[in-house]
Order: sequence, then C-alpha cells, then structure tokens
Amino acid sequence: MKKVAVIMGSDSDLNIVSEAFKTFKMLGIDFEAHVISAHRTPGAAAEFASAAAQNGFGVIIAAAGKAAHLAGFLAAHTILPVIGIPIKSSTLDGLDALLSTVQMPSGVPVATVAIDGSQNAAILAAQILALGDKQLSDKLTEMKAQMSAGVSEKDINLQKQLQNQM
Amino acid sequence: MKKVAVIMGSDSDLNIVSEAFKTFKMLGIDFEAHVISAHRTPGAAAEFASAAAQNGFGVIIAAAGKAAHLAGFLAAHTILPVIGIPIKSSTLDGLDALLSTVQMPSGVPVATVAIDGSQNAAILAAQILALGDKQLSDKLTEMKAQMSAGVSEKDINLQKQLQNQM
Amino acid sequence: MKKVAVIMGSDSDLNIVSEAFKTFKMLGIDFEAHVISAHRTPGAAAEFASAAAQNGFGVIIAAAGKAAHLAGFLAAHTILPVIGIPIKSSTLDGLDALLSTVQMPSGVPVATVAIDGSQNAAILAAQILALGDKQLSDKLTEMKAQMSAGVSEKDINLQKQLQNQM
Amino acid sequence: MKKVAVIMGSDSDLNIVSEAFKTFKMLGIDFEAHVISAHRTPGAAAEFASAAAQNGFGVIIAAAGKAAHLAGFLAAHTILPVIGIPIKSSTLDGLDALLSTVQMPSGVPVATVAIDGSQNAAILAAQILALGDKQLSDKLTEMKAQMSAGVSEKDINLQKQLQNQM
Amino acid sequence: MKKVAVIMGSDSDLNIVSEAFKTFKMLGIDFEAHVISAHRTPGAAAEFASAAAQNGFGVIIAAAGKAAHLAGFLAAHTILPVIGIPIKSSTLDGLDALLSTVQMPSGVPVATVAIDGSQNAAILAAQILALGDKQLSDKLTEMKAQMSAGVSEKDINLQKQLQNQM
Amino acid sequence: MKKVAVIMGSDSDLNIVSEAFKTFKMLGIDFEAHVISAHRTPGAAAEFASAAAQNGFGVIIAAAGKAAHLAGFLAAHTILPVIGIPIKSSTLDGLDALLSTVQMPSGVPVATVAIDGSQNAAILAAQILALGDKQLSDKLTEMKAQMSAGVSEKDINLQKQLQNQM
Amino acid sequence: MKKVAVIMGSDSDLNIVSEAFKTFKMLGIDFEAHVISAHRTPGAAAEFASAAAQNGFGVIIAAAGKAAHLAGFLAAHTILPVIGIPIKSSTLDGLDALLSTVQMPSGVPVATVAIDGSQNAAILAAQILALGDKQLSDKLTEMKAQMSAGVSEKDINLQKQLQNQM
Amino acid sequence: MKKVAVIMGSDSDLNIVSEAFKTFKMLGIDFEAHVISAHRTPGAAAEFASAAAQNGFGVIIAAAGKAAHLAGFLAAHTILPVIGIPIKSSTLDGLDALLSTVQMPSGVPVATVAIDGSQNAAILAAQILALGDKQLSDKLTEMKAQMSAGVSEKDINLQKQLQNQM
Repeated sequence: MKKVAVIMGSDSDLNIVSEAFKTFKMLGIDFEAHVISAHRTPGAAAEFASAAAQNGFGVIIAAAGKAAHLAGFLAAHTILPVIGIPIKSSTLDGLDALLSTVQMPSGVPVATVAIDGSQNAAILAAQILALGDKQLSDKLTEMKAQMSAGVSEKDINLQKQLQNQM
Repeated sequence: MKKVAVIMGSDSDLNIVSEAFKTFKMLGIDFEAHVISAHRTPGAAAEFASAAAQNGFGVIIAAAGKAAHLAGFLAAHTILPVIGIPIKSSTLDGLDALLSTVQMPSGVPVATVAIDGSQNAAILAAQILALGDKQLSDKLTEMKAQMSAGVSEKDINLQKQLQNQM
Repeated sequence: MKKVAVIMGSDSDLNIVSEAFKTFKMLGIDFEAHVISAHRTPGAAAEFASAAAQNGFGVIIAAAGKAAHLAGFLAAHTILPVIGIPIKSSTLDGLDALLSTVQMPSGVPVATVAIDGSQNAAILAAQILALGDKQLSDKLTEMKAQMSAGVSEKDINLQKQLQNQM
Repeated sequence: MKKVAVIMGSDSDLNIVSEAFKTFKMLGIDFEAHVISAHRTPGAAAEFASAAAQNGFGVIIAAAGKAAHLAGFLAAHTILPVIGIPIKSSTLDGLDALLSTVQMPSGVPVATVAIDGSQNAAILAAQILALGDKQLSDKLTEMKAQMSAGVSEKDINLQKQLQNQM
Repeated sequence: MKKVAVIMGSDSDLNIVSEAFKTFKMLGIDFEAHVISAHRTPGAAAEFASAAAQNGFGVIIAAAGKAAHLAGFLAAHTILPVIGIPIKSSTLDGLDALLSTVQMPSGVPVATVAIDGSQNAAILAAQILALGDKQLSDKLTEMKAQMSAGVSEKDINLQKQLQNQM
Repeated sequence: MKKVAVIMGSDSDLNIVSEAFKTFKMLGIDFEAHVISAHRTPGAAAEFASAAAQNGFGVIIAAAGKAAHLAGFLAAHTILPVIGIPIKSSTLDGLDALLSTVQMPSGVPVATVAIDGSQNAAILAAQILALGDKQLSDKLTEMKAQMSAGVSEKDINLQKQLQNQM
Repeated sequence: MKKVAVIMGSDSDLNIVSEAFKTFKMLGIDFEAHVISAHRTPGAAAEFASAAAQNGFGVIIAAAGKAAHLAGFLAAHTILPVIGIPIKSSTLDGLDALLSTVQMPSGVPVATVAIDGSQNAAILAAQILALGDKQLSDKLTEMKAQMSAGVSEKDINLQKQLQNQM
Repeated sequence: MKKVAVIMGSDSDLNIVSEAFKTFKMLGIDFEAHVISAHRTPGAAAEFASAAAQNGFGVIIAAAGKAAHLAGFLAAHTILPVIGIPIKSSTLDGLDALLSTVQMPSGVPVATVAIDGSQNAAILAAQILALGDKQLSDKLTEMKAQMSAGVSEKDINLQKQLQNQM
C-alpha cells in the first residue's frame, strides 16, 4: 500500500495535525510527516512533491494557516491527490486559510476539508487508498459502523439522563 | 477502471457541471451523471450512494448550491471518496454552498473544490483513479505539461502585444 | 397535544439545547430528545423523521453545528414543521451552521432561529402547537406578559442604581 | 382553517413575495397580503399583529430587506408563529436582512427562511396549519411526492441528453 | 439644554453603555437611562420615543445586540436624531448588530457608531446639542484638545521607553 | 438656520449623493456641496472642516467609497456632527466603506447611515438642525406623516391588484 | 534605474493590470510583463523570482485571483519587495484573492494593494524606486500635485452644475 | 541609510508593533517610533508625513486598528512608500482594520501586510531600503537562509518526535 505524506507549514500546527496520525495508526496506514514551508523552504516543498509519487506516496495532506498556500503549492508539483487542511490562526477564524486553500484555479485542485479538520483529512486519504485495498476498505466500513454505534450509544445515555431529571 | 458518478442537486447546475464531463471525455474516464436531490429525493440519494461502490463507481462528485447538503449526504452513505462542488446561486456569492459543503463534522469528509470548480472536481477524481491506473496517470502528467505549455504560449503572446504597443 | 422532538447532532450540543427543555417543562409541553446524526446515523434520522407524525410529534427541532445538515435532512423526510438551531462551534462563529441551516432550496423549508437560540426554538414550537390549544396559547400570552414585566423591573432597578451613583 | 397574513415592508418586494401567493392558491390556503412598514407605519404594524389572532390568522409571514425589522416587530406583538423572509437588496447580497431577521433575542422567535425564500415561507406556513387540518396535510404530502417525481423526471431527461451527446 | 435619553435593550448592555454616562457627567449633560426592549416592551418603547421631544429630550441613544432593532424602532416614532450603538454579543462579533442598526431603509435614519462605541455615541449626542449651546461647544473643543494632548504625552512616554531600551 | 455641507470624495459619487440634495430642497435647508478628497486634497479637507463651524455650517455630510476615510478625517478637524455615507464601489459590495466609516476610535464619532444612504443622511442632518428650528421640525413631522400615508396608499393599491387577480 | 516586473497569473487579468503599464509609461519607468502561473508554471515562477534581482529588477508586482498565491510564491524566492494585486474573479468579490495575498506568514511579506488596484501597485513601485532616484521622486511629487489639482477642478465643475440647477 | 518611521495610532498597539523593532535592531536599521493619531492629532500626523522625506526617512510604517485611517492619512502627505499594519481590536477580528488600510483609492497606495503583521512590515521596509544598500541586502539574504534552516531543523525535530512515539 502507498504511504501518505503529511506536510505542515509550521510545527505550531502539530497539535491539530496529530489527530490525523491517530487515524492512520488506527487504520494501519503508513505515513510520513514533515515540516516544510511553501514560503520559507519552497525548494524543499517543490522537491518533495515532485518526487512523492516515485517515493511511494499515494496521497499528500498539507496543513497551513493564514494565506495557506502549502497545499496548492504541492499540488502544482504532482498529480497525486493533495488534501488541504486550513488551519485557524490568531485572526479571521480560519476563513483566510479556507479561501486560500479551496479557491484553487482550474487545473490544480486541492481536496479541501473543514478548518482544523485533520481527522477528516486522514479519513479522506484512507478512502482514496482503499479504492485499491480491500482490507483498508473493510476497516473503513467497520469504522463507519462504530461511529454510527457511538451515536446510538450517546442517544441511550441521553435517554437515561433525561429520565433521571424527571 | 472504476467509473465516476456526477450527481447534481438540480438540473440548473448542468451548465457549470458539464465542464467536468469534458474533462472526463478528454481523459477517457467513464462517468455517469444524475439529477438527485438530498432534499427532494433523499431516498434515491441514499440508495445511490450506498450501492455506488458495488456498482463500479470509484469516486462520487456532488454539485449543489445554497445549503448544499448533497455531497455530505452522499458521503454519509459510502466510504468512497466524495468530491463536493459548491455552486454559486443568486445570493451570497457561493459562500453558503462553500461552508455547507466543506465544514463537515469529524468522520465524514467531503473533498471540497472551489466554488463552481467543476473542472477541478473532475481532475481530482482523475488523480484519485490514476493511483491504480498507469495509463490515466500518464494522461494527467501530459495534461499538466500542456497546461504549463499553454501559460508559456500566453506569455509569448503578451510579449508580442507589448512590443506592438511600443 | 402533540409532542415536540428535539434532535441534536452531537451530545456536545446538549448544554445549549437544554435551554429548550426548560421552556418545554415550564409550558407543560411533552417532548423527546435524541442524539441522531445526519452524517453518522442517516438511516436513523430518516426513519425518525418519516415516522414522526405518526408517532405523535407535531414539531421537530434540530440542533447542529458546522455544515449543519440535520434540520434540512429531517425536513426532507416529513411535512411536519422543522425548526433549526445553528450551533456555534470552534471556528467561524456559527456562520457556517447558520447558512447551512437557513439557505434551504425551494420546497423544503427549515424554520431557522438565531445561532445557539434554543429557547426561541422551544417558544416557536410552542407557538405552533398553541394554534390548536387554547390552554397553551394562554400560557404563552402570560409568558410574554411576564417577559415584559421583567424588562420593566430591570428598568426600575436601573433607576435605583443611577440614583445611588448621583 | 386559519388564514395566513403576508406582510411586506415595501411594494418593491412584491415580485419576490408573490411566489408565496401561488403556493397558497395551489394549496387552497386563504391569505391576505399587506404593505405595512415597521419603520414608516409602526402603528399599523403593531395593530395588525396584535389583532391578528382574533382576526382569524394562524401564521404571519413578513418580508423585508436591509435592516429587516418587520418580522421581529410583528412577533413582538403576537404569539402567533411569525415567518421571516429576508429580502436581498442593492448591497450586501441579503446578508443584512438575514442577520436582522434571524438573530432575534431570547423570548421573541422569528422562523427565518432563506434569502428571497418566499415559496418556502408559504410551505412552512402550510406545514404549520396542516397540523390541525388533515386535508391540507394530504395536499402537502402529495406536493412533496410531485416534487420528488419532478427530480426523477429531470434525471431521465439528463440521461437522454447525455446519450445524445455520445 | 435638552436631555439625552439612553435606552438599552437589556441590562446586560449596562457595562458597555455606562461609558456614555461618564462622558455626559464630564460634559455636564443631563441624561436619563432606561431598559426598554423593542421586542419585549414594544409599547413602552413606542410611547417613550413618541413623547421624547415633548419630555425635553433632544437626542436618543439606543444600544442593542444581535438583531438590534431598538434604535430603528425608536427612530420610527420620533423626529429626534437617534444614535445607535451596536452591541457585540456571543456570536458573529457584533456584525449582526451593526448591520441591523445601520442598514435602515430610506426615511428613517439611525446615526450608527462603532460596535460597542458608547463613548462616541455620547460625544456625538453632545456635538448635536452643542449646536445650540456655546458652553457645551467650548467643552467639546477643550475635550478635543485634551485628547490631542493625551496622544502627545503618550508619544513622549514612548520616546523615554525606547531610549531606556537602547 | 445653519447650513449643511455635503462633501464627496469623488465626483463619481454624485449620482448617489444628489438624493440628499433633493431632500434639502424639499425641506428648505441651505446646503453647499464640494468634491474634496481625504487622500488627494487633505489640506483642503482639513481647512474646510476646521472652518466649517465659523462658516455657518451646522452639520457635515461626507460620502466616500472603499477605504472611506473622508468622514472620519473631517470629524478629526471639527466638533460639528459629521454624518458618513459609505458608498458601494466595484468590489466588496460596500462593506469596506461601511467598516471604514463606522468603526471610528473613541473620541471621534461619525454618525454612519446605510450604504448609499444619501436620503437618510439628509434627513438625519435635518433632524439635527430641527432641534433649534420649530419650522423645520414641523416639516419633518409632516414628511413622516406623508411617508406613512404613502405606505397606506401602496397597501390599498395592493388590495386592488390582489382582487383583480381573483 | 531598476526595472519593474509585472507578473500576472493569467492573461485574463491583463485588462486590469494594463492600468499599471500606463502609469509606468507616464513616469518613464522601465518594466517587463509576463504571464507566469504559481500553479501551472511553478518552475518558471521560481526561476524568474530567484534571478530577478540579478536581472536588473527592483520591484516585482504580481496580480492573481481566487487562491492568489502568485505574489507570495514569488516573494518566497527573492528579497526584492513584492507587491500583490488581488484580482476580483467570478465569486466572492475578490475577498478570496485579498486574504490569500495579504495574510502572509512571518518572514515573507507581500505589499498588498486594493482589490484590482493596478494603478496603485504601479505608484507604490515608483515610490520604492524613487528613494534612489531624484528625477522619479520629482515626477511623483508633480503627479500628486496634478491629482490634487484634478480634484479641485472637479469641485469647480460641481459648483457650476449646482448653480445651473438653482 | 535612510531611517524607518514607525507610527502607531495608540500606545495600546505597542506590544504588537514592538516585533518590528526587534527586526530593525537585528538588521541594523535606524528607526524612530511615535504615537500619532490620524483622528486625535491629525495636524501632527500631516506634519510628520510631509516632512518625513526631508527628515531622512525612507519608509513609513503605520499601525492602527478599527477604521484604520492612519496609513492612508500619512500616505496622503508624502511620496515615501507607506506600509500599513492592520491591528486586530476587540471586534470583527481585524477585518475592519484590514479593509480600511488596504482598500485605498487610486493615486494613494498603502503597502498592506497581514493583520498584526509587524515583523513582515519591518522586513518589507528592509527590502525596500536594501535596494540601495548592498550590506542590508546581504543581511536579508542571510536572514532568509536562516529562516529556511529553521524550518529544516523543525522537521528534524519532528522526525525524532515521531520515532519516539513508535
């Protein structure tokens, strides 16, 4: 199975992005994570993205805040699917990162998830890899079932809570 | 190769969405397109998404405007990657559709592209399918090269234009 | 009298939504509350909404954050009036939930109240049920009078405060 | 059956609001429409809303643009459910009217529908009245079925269109 | 000299609005403050505004949050100048109150100041009253001079601070 | 009676601003209008505002678009009340002008009206001047009554229209 | 004197950007213009920016729409000042391009001008170059004087217009 | 070498702006800082900007919040490049200051950096001054290299962290 690359523009994004790592471990997906900046180490970013397919990666996830160019920059250098996580920073509540990530011009898509949506980025990467991997596909199906069961359980707890209040 | 499903919430989205069809034809990707509404035909939508993997689809693209629930709704019923195209409608310039599509809760990602970004949705679908298809991968590489060449050509034209003005 | 159903997409919305419960208890309105997710348990949501009228419900209230599809999803499966409460989450200050809830396409309305407006959702539900219930109607009239009296009392307190400052 | 009142702040809103009239005629719902302004004829507005229940109205719909106070103003004077239609005007794309209509303080709800969403306001009013009217309820169920059938028909047309293009 | 009325929609706005009181005391302007709600005590609001000119008021200031109708409502009932203070509440950062206050329809202006701008509302009221009051006009001129001197003093302090750091 | 000054940042704002002229002529208010720019002729702007009170002006109205500094700039040089009209320009729908006009820092208020709200700026100026002018006050009262009558007349016309449709 | 480079991401931006060319011609500033895309020809963009200083450029202007990464991308590869022009495209009124251009992370500034503000980008470039060029500095001073005179002339025209209307 | 002037509208902006001071010290750039307000000390502001070029300044940086007119006001009085830092204040998350700073009319540009982007303002000023100063240019090149090395180092640290977690 192909690996996933998780690139973050700054190590300050790590506590958000690490949600993705948990999902990959749970699903048994091989991943690498790097701090590479579109603006401070553009050469490294271009190099990484250009070689990613040959280096065994199947999907690239990029997390960045503010004028979040990282995902789009990586997408410019590869035909691998690139997933963008807009990171909320100290102003504008993540709207700047969202628009900078999602509003890509024709020809270079970025698969954008919710602001700070690291777990969903990981699941989306897994869904993509699962197209060619029956075992991963089964794990995702099971995860979806568990997620559903978790909601049902919460509903049962709510019923108990409400009855106790009466 | 797996097929792509293109679902639109209303046939008024067709002139935007048909950009995706052109890309699929150019890349030789098999696709089906349907008008299915999350709000008016929810049963059909749930059924389509639930059976999509078994019916040979690898990716689902959903286009919708306003409170654009279609992509998220389909994603709730499948583990296939779902790509969302927020459609600009008569008010709010597409911001409502963008937020309704991209801000999905944890567990159910939608790979969101730019507002009215049909061509990019198609290319993203192709990038996903190309992970398991060397021929498609080569076509995407070539398309990227042509796109790049197209920009260079436009630059040459600009130089001529500027010289003529002197 | 018909019951009110209060559906929340996540149990994390409970502390906002419980404001509605207080209002229902004060007005003597029968209600049920459930955790049902449009994205994680769509089958349960569809089933609940489809059967709600037959199960004695007169109004459905749905509370959800981010790409808040819950109210619209339930409305797609019933002709009961559905009231949507957009919940503010960690980014975008509730604007995403507001637009996802209110900007419904023609044919499937959601009666949207203010962001985090649980008490108003409950009052609106009561106003709807009161159309066929003189006793509830009288209670609402009295509640409105008390609310008005409460403001007058606050004005009197303010006059005292201001006089003390002189 | 109770009547619906449709109040518009300006007769320039008529071409949007008249969508509601069509729906009422189709469903056989009795309605009155008036031009009453919260700011120019506040006395008339207060009087209308205060007497609406006694005058046989069950629901009030209010349409207004910009700092759209009309729905909230009427709601202040009645315990009837009040539905607000935010009208898009020449600036800000209807966002001003939406926020002015939906963000009501605790105690005085307005059931807000989409910007320019007149048809949905009418359907919501019908859903409310249908709680006590089996015949209207049946009509709404049928309308929902027709709406669904309309989408299916559009899908069939799309299939033909796509086949012709091949 | 005419009095200023300061109306707030809720006593929770008092800590913001009390900035205005300080300014009035400093400038020797007579004022009254009241808690009156456009939505909960509309009758009192209409009555107050209608009689304000006869009761010796020259300017009305209204402070309200969310769908802030208070200033516009009062303006509907008087030809006195009405100043609106949009109050920031728990969501949307005051944008809802700003748009609800400032975007008034033709014929009924509200003189809107900044979000939470109580001091400026008071100064604006003073500027209006000073048109017919030489003494107040002199005080405002002096206040402006002091404000200017305060900035110069801060600059001198900054120079000291910067020199100490060298 | 004091005069009103209407300052516009660019003569392209004239077709919006001329709405104010009509109101002044109707109310018999003396006014002067000037094209003065905060950014291109700051000296003239400072001079005009500084001398405005002595030159017989009672109120200054300023209309500007984009980063609309004109009203605030004039307010910095006078203690006369300054009314700001944010003008909608080719991008951002007037939001930039609104925020640049209304969000003034403490000490220097601008009485902001709606985007493109020239008529209301004129009425507000009239309301201010009417505090010391019984005749103008009577004209404003009459204008308010006519405005109210105008709405009633439109309602009568609507009733006729609706009856004809039956 | 150093040259200015004007880079546009697409030749569709030419009609906006050509405003800058006029200013350069008027001020006698040498410039080159190119179509280079951050996403479609990233290699060319990196190369151009890296070599710009050595190739005699003193300032780089970059114009791009949507997720406008071009200015930031060029700034990542040079220590020359980079000026960004956010271009308004078919959705979101230029807000996406503005935020993508201006919200740069620490270390890599982009000097951002108004949406579609090509003329100002050119003037800003001229102001930068004029620091080391007395002749250009004099031209800018004269241009500022002419601009000021232009406003005064418009004011005179307005006075004539107003007098004719009397 | 020319000096940089750093003007802030209020001393409350000092903790944000002092980031710029650090950068100037690191790069050996001479600077002065002042508290001067466009609205409270407009005369001082006009005087400072008008004389800045003659007083040895090469660049002016202006930091202000809310209706942030300071940068534009200074730019109106000088042909020196003016850099604007929009400061986030208690409401609207800095959007008001950003739009008030960047959306300048044609003829008077402000080089706007990110909200609270003081370090970038300083770097941009340095880049401008470096055009005529080889030594400063070398320092900027070295700073860029160090910044790049810093990112690489963070990546190495991340690799260690990730390995330890395995």
